[in-house]
Amino acid sequence: MSVFKTILYPTDFSDLAEVAKNYVLKLKEANAEKVIILHVIHPMEFSLPQFDDPFALDVAAIYAHIPEIEKAILDRHQEKLQQLKHEFERAGFKVETVMTVGDPKEEIVKTSEEKNCNLIVIGYHGKGLLERILEIGSTAKAVIRKAKCPVLVVKKEERE
Amino acid sequence: MSVFKTILYPTDFSDLAEVAKNYVLKLKEANAEKVIILHVIHPMEFSLPQFDDPFALDVAAIYAHIPEIEKAILDRHQEKLQQLKHEFERAGFKVETVMTVGDPKEEIVKTSEEKNCNLIVIGYHGKGLLERILEIGSTAKAVIRKAKCPVLVVKKEERE
Repeated sequence: MSVFKTILYPTDFSDLAEVAKNYVLKLKEANAEKVIILHVIHPMEFSLPQFDDPFALDVAAIYAHIPEIEKAILDRHQEKLQQLKHEFERAGFKVETVMTVGDPKEEIVKTSEEKNCNLIVIGYHGKGLLERILEIGSTAKAVIRKAKCPVLVVKKEERE
Repeated sequence: MSVFKTILYPTDFSDLAEVAKNYVLKLKEANAEKVIILHVIHPMEFSLPQFDDPFALDVAAIYAHIPEIEKAILDRHQEKLQQLKHEFERAGFKVETVMTVGDPKEEIVKTSEEKNCNLIVIGYHGKGLLERILEIGSTAKAVIRKAKCPVLVVKKEERE
């Protein structure tokens, strides 16, 4: 059994997630088999009416309640997930896409367990006082702390 | 070129380092080629006479200045490194062992750069209030922050 049978690749479609994506693609040579592409929607990103627990909503419920202009954003996210799916498929991976609603770090850890992932690959800024003050990278840190499976941290300054 | 051409495996010979070792061994199936086994001696572990900068000492200088009973400890460390070397060689890796003096996190990052490592594999306790209070895992966290190459974090509770 491949040590990288199922890799979880969480993406917020940022430049840093792109760095992590390129690394996951390289893991094909390391006999990686399947990638689960996860995008987590934070309910606060959208203009939702008042809900007791917006984190309990699913993607369809969010879609049903947001204004048209934000539906276009969500549609674009779905498209980006599909583009990523095709990119990984072309590289020879089996691919599953998952879109969930919630707190990114919690959803990443939960998905890694539900899908029996062998590895989570995440990008990390690392240096920079500003980033440390703004707590960029706190999702990465929380995932490292909470995940049961190994976590591969890819740096933006990564050496090729 | 293998994505895991040269892996840095730092060890303090703890149970956690053992977990990381078992993971590095599994990376052979992922086409890993070479492992650099690093053990960092913190000068404060030994009864050294007063030096202006004990961190500037090398292993030979430490060996020359410590009492006989502590020389036996250092000899044992060397033996453990050799045992690890043989274990990785039996698994098909090219192996280099490195023993340095200094602060573990600094030496890990420095060695990863000097040896052009493609990956650092470290163990991490993760959970546990006690561990968080005692800052166990702070070496892992500092390495993740400072290393230029990707860092693979293996958890003690790792799923097989």
